[in-house]
Amino acid sequence: MNDGRHEILRGGSLRVIGIGPGPADWITPEASRILAGATDLVGYGAYLARLPQQSGQTRHVSGNGAELDRAHGALTLAQNGKQVAVVSGGDPGVFAMAAAVFEAIDHGDPAWRDIDIQILPGVSAMQAAAARLGAPLGHDFCAISLSDNLKPWALVEKRLTAAADGDFVMALYNPASKTRRDQIRAAFALLRRHKAGATPVMFAKSIGRADEHIIVATLKDADPEVADMATLIIIGSSETKLIFRNGRQPYVYTPRGAGRAP
Amino acid sequence: MNDGRHEILRGGSLRVIGIGPGPADWITPEASRILAGATDLVGYGAYLARLPQQSGQTRHVSGNGAELDRAHGALTLAQNGKQVAVVSGGDPGVFAMAAAVFEAIDHGDPAWRDIDIQILPGVSAMQAAAARLGAPLGHDFCAISLSDNLKPWALVEKRLTAAADGDFVMALYNPASKTRRDQIRAAFALLRRHKAGATPVMFAKSIGRADEHIIVATLKDADPEVADMATLIIIGSSETKLIFRNGRQPYVYTPRGAGRAP
Repeated sequence: MNDGRHEILRGGSLRVIGIGPGPADWITPEASRILAGATDLVGYGAYLARLPQQSGQTRHVSGNGAELDRAHGALTLAQNGKQVAVVSGGDPGVFAMAAAVFEAIDHGDPAWRDIDIQILPGVSAMQAAAARLGAPLGHDFCAISLSDNLKPWALVEKRLTAAADGDFVMALYNPASKTRRDQIRAAFALLRRHKAGATPVMFAKSIGRADEHIIVATLKDADPEVADMATLIIIGSSETKLIFRNGRQPYVYTPRGAGRAP
Repeated sequence: MNDGRHEILRGGSLRVIGIGPGPADWITPEASRILAGATDLVGYGAYLARLPQQSGQTRHVSGNGAELDRAHGALTLAQNGKQVAVVSGGDPGVFAMAAAVFEAIDHGDPAWRDIDIQILPGVSAMQAAAARLGAPLGHDFCAISLSDNLKPWALVEKRLTAAADGDFVMALYNPASKTRRDQIRAAFALLRRHKAGATPVMFAKSIGRADEHIIVATLKDADPEVADMATLIIIGSSETKLIFRNGRQPYVYTPRGAGRAP
């Protein structure tokens, strides 16, 4: 933490950008324009690797999990007069870099509150997954991160239980990694106690990328072991329905209404 | 409902497109390309009015609330060989046209299951609102429509209660219209019974448009009467924080972690 207030050099700015789940086709024109004009790109290596190299632009690559350090570095660059683009996957406001930047500001140099900062929205993983499936998020839904790196597991369980009680569709982010496997098993065990076995469960992996893969299952039969860091899981509500098609993946949708005849 | 199966003419397709909350700057390149190549645009008049006129392209304008009729019309056009773009505000998968299209398919001509259909994701209102505020959706959140046009109000109350019990951030869609005012009052009365008075409450109106306006308040002091059809409301969790700045709107963010020291 830095308690001193340092001068803000003129011309510096910080933009937190979402480049969507994969293809350039899902990057907004606003984000592309800001990326092209930035002096410095700051981000996780896998995200920066998706963007074309540009002469005169400096890249500051950091590892996954170093979000707060990355935010500090980006704010310091902007304070020193750089036009900084912090590059996030998906939407920067949804389980991504925007929150880390504001955490850094909240606990950092008070002068950082005067930096010219904007967040640029993007397409998040759950939206891309939903688009490929049909319209599973067509009605009330929750987005929950299954990672307990920064919160107690009891809070994840409390939220999964509340989401089941409220009969929300659920989008589960960060379900598992190579070494973090217990959470996805515990989450499915909990959901199986609280929801019908016939509830549609969808695993959407690497949507928009070359290894895109979708599995449509039921809560009773789904195998949570298929989930990894590139997987977004959608759990249906009691209203979520499948539309079967000959020889093709069924459509999955949640009607706009509930509890009444259509 | 149509129980007959009619032939699908070759070349027909249906794309359900999200044009975001307002500016062209938030429309994905994918959506723009499909819009440019469509023979027929189908949508609510206010959304179509945002798009440039294009020669040789037919517009099918319908009123707000006619979603299922609009979906039927779009599917029939695609079945007859047209390249149809159904235009939705925001993200078509979030409280928008994608669910209506699949409802129509589920209950309509079985041949509609063979139409070439894709959903194109976009930026939803809650993401644009969040971007303007800071990062209020930075951790677990719910999206709830307060409209009881298609669901019983008791279900809305059940979901608001569950979302409060789970300490989710909430994005409230369709909070009120000129004639539908009771729901927003009842929702705030319920939330005030279940959540702390100091909870941050944000009204984000017409984000990305000329009359964009934001109010940051607390649950105790917020005036729900300011909400209208163009308003997206965000209710904080117990962790949602404000960062105050001299003479400017405070930043609002929800930390990535919870229940532990940062």
